Amino acid sequence: MFVTRIPNRVSKAHQTLRCQRTLFDRLRIVSFLDYLVTCTHPQHGVMAASAPSSSGGEPDPNSTNLRPPGTSYDAWCGVAHGCTRKLGMKICGFLQKNNNLEEKISSFKERSSKDLLDNSDRDSRFRRTETDFSNLFARDLLPAKNGEEPTMQFLLEVVDILTNYVRKTFDRSTKVLDFHHPHQLLEGMEGFNLELSDQPESLEQILVDCRDTLKYGVRTGHPRFFNQLSTGLDIIGLAGEWLTSTANTNMFTYEIAPVFVLMEQLTLKKMREIIGWPDGEGDGIFSPGGAISNMYSVMTARYKFFPEVKTKGMNAAPRLVLFTSEHSHYSIKKASAALGFGTENLILLNTDERGRVIPADLEAKVIDAKARGCVPMFVNATAGSTVYGAFDPIHEIADICEKYNMWLHVDGAWGGGLLMSRKHRHKLSGVERANSVTWNPHKMMGVPLQCSAILVRERGVLSGCNSMCAGYLFQPDKQYDVSYDTGDKAIQCGRHVDIFKFWLMWKAKGTIGFEHHIDKCLDLSHYLYTKIRNREGYQMVFEGEPQHTNVCFWYLPPGIRDMPDGQERRERLHKVAPKIKAMMMESGTTMVGYQPQGDKVNFFRMVISNPAATRSDIDFLTDEIERLGHDL
Amino acid sequence: MFVTRIPNRVSKAHQTLRCQRTLFDRLRIVSFLDYLVTCTHPQHGVMAASAPSSSGGEPDPNSTNLRPPGTSYDAWCGVAHGCTRKLGMKICGFLQKNNNLEEKISSFKERSSKDLLDNSDRDSRFRRTETDFSNLFARDLLPAKNGEEPTMQFLLEVVDILTNYVRKTFDRSTKVLDFHHPHQLLEGMEGFNLELSDQPESLEQILVDCRDTLKYGVRTGHPRFFNQLSTGLDIIGLAGEWLTSTANTNMFTYEIAPVFVLMEQLTLKKMREIIGWPDGEGDGIFSPGGAISNMYSVMTARYKFFPEVKTKGMNAAPRLVLFTSEHSHYSIKKASAALGFGTENLILLNTDERGRVIPADLEAKVIDAKARGCVPMFVNATAGSTVYGAFDPIHEIADICEKYNMWLHVDGAWGGGLLMSRKHRHKLSGVERANSVTWNPHKMMGVPLQCSAILVRERGVLSGCNSMCAGYLFQPDKQYDVSYDTGDKAIQCGRHVDIFKFWLMWKAKGTIGFEHHIDKCLDLSHYLYTKIRNREGYQMVFEGEPQHTNVCFWYLPPGIRDMPDGQERRERLHKVAPKIKAMMMESGTTMVGYQPQGDKVNFFRMVISNPAATRSDIDFLTDEIERLGHDL
Repeated sequence: MFVTRIPNRVSKAHQTLRCQRTLFDRLRIVSFLDYLVTCTHPQHGVMAASAPSSSGGEPDPNSTNLRPPGTSYDAWCGVAHGCTRKLGMKICGFLQKNNNLEEKISSFKERSSKDLLDNSDRDSRFRRTETDFSNLFARDLLPAKNGEEPTMQFLLEVVDILTNYVRKTFDRSTKVLDFHHPHQLLEGMEGFNLELSDQPESLEQILVDCRDTLKYGVRTGHPRFFNQLSTGLDIIGLAGEWLTSTANTNMFTYEIAPVFVLMEQLTLKKMREIIGWPDGEGDGIFSPGGAISNMYSVMTARYKFFPEVKTKGMNAAPRLVLFTSEHSHYSIKKASAALGFGTENLILLNTDERGRVIPADLEAKVIDAKARGCVPMFVNATAGSTVYGAFDPIHEIADICEKYNMWLHVDGAWGGGLLMSRKHRHKLSGVERANSVTWNPHKMMGVPLQCSAILVRERGVLSGCNSMCAGYLFQPDKQYDVSYDTGDKAIQCGRHVDIFKFWLMWKAKGTIGFEHHIDKCLDLSHYLYTKIRNREGYQMVFEGEPQHTNVCFWYLPPGIRDMPDGQERRERLHKVAPKIKAMMMESGTTMVGYQPQGDKVNFFRMVISNPAATRSDIDFLTDEIERLGHDL
Repeated sequence: MFVTRIPNRVSKAHQTLRCQRTLFDRLRIVSFLDYLVTCTHPQHGVMAASAPSSSGGEPDPNSTNLRPPGTSYDAWCGVAHGCTRKLGMKICGFLQKNNNLEEKISSFKERSSKDLLDNSDRDSRFRRTETDFSNLFARDLLPAKNGEEPTMQFLLEVVDILTNYVRKTFDRSTKVLDFHHPHQLLEGMEGFNLELSDQPESLEQILVDCRDTLKYGVRTGHPRFFNQLSTGLDIIGLAGEWLTSTANTNMFTYEIAPVFVLMEQLTLKKMREIIGWPDGEGDGIFSPGGAISNMYSVMTARYKFFPEVKTKGMNAAPRLVLFTSEHSHYSIKKASAALGFGTENLILLNTDERGRVIPADLEAKVIDAKARGCVPMFVNATAGSTVYGAFDPIHEIADICEKYNMWLHVDGAWGGGLLMSRKHRHKLSGVERANSVTWNPHKMMGVPLQCSAILVRERGVLSGCNSMCAGYLFQPDKQYDVSYDTGDKAIQCGRHVDIFKFWLMWKAKGTIGFEHHIDKCLDLSHYLYTKIRNREGYQMVFEGEPQHTNVCFWYLPPGIRDMPDGQERRERLHKVAPKIKAMMMESGTTMVGYQPQGDKVNFFRMVISNPAATRSDIDFLTDEIERLGHDL
């Protein structure tokens, strides 16, 4: 069935593995020494010397170099062990300070054989031996017979690639990215072939593919990557995600995810406590991102007010309207389209010059909607808007929601993390009055993607809204308390384990660790703001200290600084940020986002969520903008 | 800011690390030997012996045992290297067969110093040194200053835990699970404390937490885990997921996920080719599971027929009805509730005794709905139903869809994988006539969770339905071809990279590798079916060979085999599967699902998607059912 195909990139793969090959040769010789040492062992004596010694032969570059299990680490120990027997006496004379050498060596000898017994299984597996992957295929890995050793070696080789990537990610002398256009990558960069085929590739090729995938990607954990709200590479979170992948289970029932289900419940409760809901009561679930969390909030609100929509559809309800800021995230709009409200029934609220909702505008629009025969049902208050980082005034919005009996949702996907900071959480003051909150730990808290929570104040609405009681998953006659089978609350069936990395980070950092991270990011954005607000060539998009880490600014190349305000200047300025960004990406030195907003032409939006970033990286960014933009 | 807290589980953590501690002591002594060897080196001579030797001192159990970078592997080499100088001549006499020993040793000596230079960076990093994690915290890891070495050591320690878990997963002498009730885990099993606190835990505690998390979880890759449609632990997929976590990026733009975006496009095209759409044309996206993929299909259909719903809501459309089998997955029902159709407007279709839709029933219900003034819009045909594994007759359903101008969706979440098999793909005959298809590689194809695709035949509908053109993500003035910014097609904003593990598996196995896996699973279910269909004590839920790997059966303990059919027998039989399942979980030997269906009392649903399963595991399952159920 399987045909071994000649790898299409043999030369490159060989090149890549060349430096490992020398190591392999070395290990072979050490293995040979191991053999010699074994021969000198009293229990084996010279007898063993007549046994065939395949590991002592000439290295054969064409052979499958899989060493039998247990030889690598044992070999080293054997060398050391054997050596000490003969070497100990010889070198004693050289030493003045170590009077207890004999004792140490003797103790080592005694211990080492015992330890080898205790740890042989563990250690022999962990140590990477040099393996020729060019003749190995996926079918040779577990669960294949004798698949354990190649599996371990393959995984360790992958880990080597990944740990090297991790190291380089934090190394400022590496690029953030090595940019190529789509057509270039599709044509196959240096043999990196993205096309899929009928026949398998060797594991050697797979390893090369892994390296290439990372090589042509973007280092989102690099200290100078500022392009998105989610940046950074948290090591604990990474470890958590590796474990999650290894556990490879599903959140729908306690039955197959007991630990993760409990972690989710405890963590959600903790988040609700931090929001300020009494005793952390309420409900919630982790969802595949803030957009889905926001969608949950609209669905849950609708179910609360018009439960009959679940069975009868939107025709059973009056014409419902939703409210959100013109600066809010587009997911509210996506939800209103998807859930059958229609984007025209999502009413956009005016904001002040800082991007914060004007409560009076909300009330006026509520009154107007009612007058038109619509039913105002849902208000989204943004805590940390995407571009400006603005926090809507929750208390004032909550007053209006109470007055007109509307559901208050707080979209804290970006700003929710500030709840962890005693210094900054006042920006979400009033969040405890919300009926639901979106909070993405994968943004400001540095948790790896994906990790987003929807939290609901009233217990029962979420499950009432979504449960369908499928008999093949949620059997009522299980032997355990089935209230822990939380999957029926979700609009998903299978649900990825997003909780573990977050739980593990919380354990490892403590609440104060998150607080420290958030305070540090806000300090850095303050540094940037104070640095550029009066600097020549910069113009702030809005006045005053930003509320979040978003610092929005135009860079004005000297050529347009003195131009009179007007259409021509606007048109030229509009092109500056995209041009600088393109050059940044081509040179790969740093990345920062830009966009227009309303009638404002393209400006840079700097955001800081990256724990690796320092003031020097901020300085680097501004220097880079000036370097690249000076002559535009 | 940070306070070092005494770990609350010191005794356990120490116990767990005890075996490592002895290894650590050994390493210390080896390091000491290294020092001795250095002293004998001609370039250092006896001079070096007078230098202070901290590594040669008495092991101090309280010290932070972090070795400086580069000492571990080098130490071993040093020992071996030094040893050979003195040892070589001594042991020559013992050897008969190796005439070229001197040459080998000399060549090794020459090579090793050069290699150490070439590989020093690589190897010193990769090699795990014994590290005392009890005084290390998350804050000591990268990006902390000097954080590289602890980061590498921490990650390698985690990998050690994970690779041990992987090995045990495939070991039939281990349990599938170690079951505990929620309250037991919440109370803290052997000190496994799930609660989160303000202060950080040491990395030692974090490692113990990782071990405990796996210990109390369920080995979904175990050869005897048959509980869900997603089983197994694919090593290539696992490696892919580890890489994905390390890259930690987001699918919304080409800008930050260039390689992954292209991989997604190419893979989706390949899938469309396999479905049979001309030239693989069409559209699609990976979504967080089959339920969301099915939701996409309904949204897309609605947009195709009533695009005004996007802006005006469901009130702009007539009363729309959807059709699906009574055996179909509950996600169709969830979608009809969420999207504003209402579950009552989802009309359930009758099936034959094998769980396949009866096309005539569809047509009759379409006609009836029209007569009631409704507009039939969408039909879901299931390819591989959840419980019976039934394949609806797609061609006959497609005929009716064409006749009445309805969208045909094929939910191949479970059965889609059979398209990869030349032997079994006929079961989806007609799928090329579908307007959209759900296909979950994370089920039958063994890809780690989550990996689900929604594929749409007509290009443009998916993006038309969902795009909102957010200016801060999808800037039209980027320097590259922005048609590769595919994120606006999604209802999500941030989107996890689900493609890479699948792409990598396809590379590693080839199309034929997937085919082989699928054929093997179906062979195994055939084996089970033929084994039990006439076996005493078993009764099949439906007659005839199953279409998919689902084998549905009752086990009848001797005590009820001769009971007359009737209410009492039904009630007793209804309790058998839950009781056996509970005992299975308590003993941890295997796991298989059960459920009622319609008027049929609880029965076992065996499904095989696990590549590790063999006939002996099938035999084990039936033996176990008989052992546990015999006296019920």
